[in-house]
Parts: sequence; structure tokens; C-alpha cells
Amino acid sequence: DIVAIPKDDPVAFTFFTGYMAMFAASVFFFFERNTVSGKWKTSLLVSGLITMIAAVHYYYMRDYYAATGTNPTALRYIDWTLTVPLMCVEFYLLTKPAGAKSSLLWKLIIASAFMLVMGYIGEAFVPLNADGTPADGASTHSFLYGALSTLGYLYILYTAWFGEVKNLADASGNPTVIRGIRMLAWFVLVGWAIYPIGYMCMPGGWLNTALGWTSSNVDLFYNIADAVNKIGFGLVIYSIAKSDTTSTA
Amino acid sequence: DIVAIPKDDPVAFTFFTGYMAMFAASVFFFFERNTVSGKWKTSLLVSGLITMIAAVHYYYMRDYYAATGTNPTALRYIDWTLTVPLMCVEFYLLTKPAGAKSSLLWKLIIASAFMLVMGYIGEAFVPLNADGTPADGASTHSFLYGALSTLGYLYILYTAWFGEVKNLADASGNPTVIRGIRMLAWFVLVGWAIYPIGYMCMPGGWLNTALGWTSSNVDLFYNIADAVNKIGFGLVIYSIAKSDTTSTA
Ligand SMILES: CC1=C(/C=C/C(C)=C/C=C/C(C)=C/C=O)C(C)(C)CCC1
Ligand SMILES: CC1=C(/C=C/C(C)=C/C=C/C(C)=C/C=O)C(C)(C)CCC1
Repeated sequence: DIVAIPKDDPVAFTFFTGYMAMFAASVFFFFERNTVSGKWKTSLLVSGLITMIAAVHYYYMRDYYAATGTNPTALRYIDWTLTVPLMCVEFYLLTKPAGAKSSLLWKLIIASAFMLVMGYIGEAFVPLNADGTPADGASTHSFLYGALSTLGYLYILYTAWFGEVKNLADASGNPTVIRGIRMLAWFVLVGWAIYPIGYMCMPGGWLNTALGWTSSNVDLFYNIADAVNKIGFGLVIYSIAKSDTTSTA
Repeated sequence: DIVAIPKDDPVAFTFFTGYMAMFAASVFFFFERNTVSGKWKTSLLVSGLITMIAAVHYYYMRDYYAATGTNPTALRYIDWTLTVPLMCVEFYLLTKPAGAKSSLLWKLIIASAFMLVMGYIGEAFVPLNADGTPADGASTHSFLYGALSTLGYLYILYTAWFGEVKNLADASGNPTVIRGIRMLAWFVLVGWAIYPIGYMCMPGGWLNTALGWTSSNVDLFYNIADAVNKIGFGLVIYSIAKSDTTSTA
């Protein structure tokens, strides 16, 4: 069994790069965890877990895509089912010293679970003809569940920018935390917004129908977004932890 | 599945040696990280990540080459896509105490991305006949994209020898750092220059056409260059870190 990446397949390329980048990022977070002060160690561990979980899923998704040329939709959502709640945990850990209660964590997790279940129904159960082309009602189906999913996304976005997470960050009075939460909020606004773009490339999706972007672009966008968000999020937390460790040393 | 290395195939030989050397180098850098002072730990970790990422890619490239006898071009550039930016991070980490701003890191990364994208187009999309011989326009194609790629390379070379990296090293006033940056700059000048030699061995490349060096030499040169640069770069940083740890102990 050899791993062969066709030279002209950017999706296969990003699956492999993503795999390796997630792997390397985990090693980075696990090692550097020893260089931050005690209260930051759990956050860095969670960053490493997010990328480690992703590395394993990318390993399988890469092979699945190489063997079938189709979107590994189930594996993708299995990954998100674990990693998105862990990102909610990151928000919670950052705001806990300022008094975040576990109800905040649950609200974020429920909103993200809703977002992912709706997205999965939208993607996995879109009506297709036997040849993979969109059947009647495919566009309606993908639009409807995409819109529902977006409600969950907007809730998280609101919480990070104007709601509880933002208020707790302000209340912490720690400029490093305020700056950090602001950067994570930007990730949710810009980085997470790449996912719906990928979603709309599926058969029956708007970018597929209107602009002719094929369904392999779904994974291209998801792979780019995952690298930005999982590794980027972790690096933001790492840099908060580092500055806070230095300033209180 | 056994690993069989033909006795008379230096390319297969260097793929395996490269794999093992990268693996061993990672273990070395990860362990020795504990013996250097705090501010050097991240640099040593990055050295270890570079060789660890390479070890995984060499594992796959070795098998790919053994199974197909052709150049694992996509895997090669996937490796560089991750390891070259990490080398830019090494330059950044070394010059940061002297005031390097993250814009320096981004300039180096963009120059190296340009270098690699042009190189990839040059290598992966060279016009070939069905039997693998160069088709019309192959030489022009490889020359053109090779020349474009070289612009990115020259930018990095300039920055390391005369530009921002050099100036910041001087400004640091730390003789260990000045000497270290000077050695890394030599690597970029001499070690990195081995890659274009490999590139010119591809079908339609100048060394292939003019001197008849076959395309398996592409990987021979790349493997030698990778060992020199990835491990050598890391060892230079290790020795800087070690002398600095002793002198400030
Ligand atoms: C809004 C929206 C979506 C959003 C997905 C998001 C925002 C996923 C985030 C994943 C992350 C952050 C993973 C990191 O570990 C879907 C489900 C594609 C369906 C279409 C509408
Ligand atoms: C100039 C030039 C090239 C340079 C490649 C280099 C300089 C690669 C460096 C790789 C490193 C340093 C990897 C280490 O981890 C190419 C792309 C072959 C194309 C032809 C012109």
C-alpha cells in the first residue's frame, strides 16, 4: 500500500498537508505545555488534543479520499463532533477565572451540536440521483439545513463578540485575556465562515449550481478552514499563555 | 510488505538513509531540548518538528519510489510546504530578541511559498510525451518556472546575508547569535543551492538535456540537500543554544 498523491489534485494535497500539520502542531503544543505557568497547562493540552484528534481523522480521510475520490462526510463530522466542543472548552477555560459558569460551556456545546447535526443532515442526506447529480429538492434541502445550522453558528458568534464570553473577558481585567478572546472571536467570524463556503459546493449547493464549483471543493475549503482554525486557535492560546506567563513571572 | 533496497540504486539508498537520519535527528533534538535554557527550547522544538515531519514524508516517499521507480513530486513539495516555513520560523525566533517583528516572518514565508509554488508548477506540469520523454516546450517550461522560483530564493538569500535578518543579528550584540545567523546564511547559500541542481535533472531540464543526467537524479540531489539542510540547520541552532546556555549559566 503506497500513498500516491496525484500531482494535479489539490484536495489530496491538502489532506496530506493537513494530516502532517495537525500532527506537528500536537507535538508542538504537548512539548510547549511545560513552558507555561500552571493555570495555562490545561488550555495548551486541549489545543494539542484538538490537533491530535484531527491528525488521526485526517490520516483516515486522506486514504478514504485517495481510494474513492469522494467526500469523507461521515469522518469529517465525527472529527467536528469532538473538536468543536473542545473549542468551546477553550472559551470556557479562558473565561473561567473571570467567573464563567459551566452553563456557559453547555450553551456553547448545545449550539455547536445543533449546528453540526443540521449540517450533517444537509450534507449526508441530500437527495441525489443514482449518478451523483442533485435530484429534485436537493437545493431546497441543502439550503434549509444550511440555514438551520447557521442559527447555531450565529449564536456562538454572538456569544463570542457581544455575549457572555465577551463580557466575562472584559470583567477579567486581564489585558492578555481580553486581547486573546478578541482574537478568538475573529477566528469564529472569519475562520469559521470558510466552512459554509465549502458546504455550498456540494451537489445542489448554491456555489455548485450557480458557479459550477464541483463537490471536491467541499473538502478543499474544509481542509483549509481546519488548518486555520484548529492550529490558529491553538497558537493564539499559546501566545496568550506565553505572554501571561512572562508578565506574572 | 518488506522494504527491499536494490543494491545498485543510490536513490533508494538515500531515501532510506534520509528517513532514518531524520527520525534519529528528531529524537536527538527532542531529548536535548531539556539541556538548553528556556529561551532556546522553542527553537530546538522547531528543529525537531522539521526533521520529524521529514521522517514521515521520507517514509512514504521511500515506499512510493520503491514501488513505482518515479519521483514522488507531490509528496516532496508537501514536505517543503511545511518544513521551509518552519525554517523561516527559526530565523524569526533567532532574531526576535533583537526586535524582529512578525512582518519579517511573513515576508520570508511569502517568498518561500512563491519559490515552492513556481517550482511545483515547473516540475509537476512539465509537458511530457506518453512515454515520459520531454514534449515540445518542456525546456522552456522548466526554465521559466525555475527562473521565477529562483526570485523567491534570492529574496531569502538577500534577507539572510544583507537584509533584515543580518541587521537584526548585528543589532543583537550577542556574538553567539551573530555567528549562528552567519552559519545559517551559509546554509541558504550553499545547502539550498543543491535543490536547483536536482530540479535541472528533470526531463527537459538543462542537466538532463545537456549532460544526460536522468530524472532519478532529481531525488538523489533533493535527498542529499534535505539531509544537509534540515539536520545541519538544526545542529547549528543546537550549537548556538548550547554555547549561549553555558555562557549565561
Ligand atoms: C454555518 C454552517 C456550517 C458550519 C460549520 C462550522 C462553523 C464548523 C466548524 C468547525 C470547526 C471550528 C472545527 C474545528 O475544530 C456547516 C456545518 C458547514 C453547514 C452549513 C452552515
Ligand atoms: C531555487 C529553485 C528551487 C529551490 C528550492 C529550495 C531552495 C528548496 C529548499 C528546501 C528546503 C530548505 C527544505 C528544508 O526543509 C526549486 C523549487 C527546486 C525550483 C528550481 C529553482
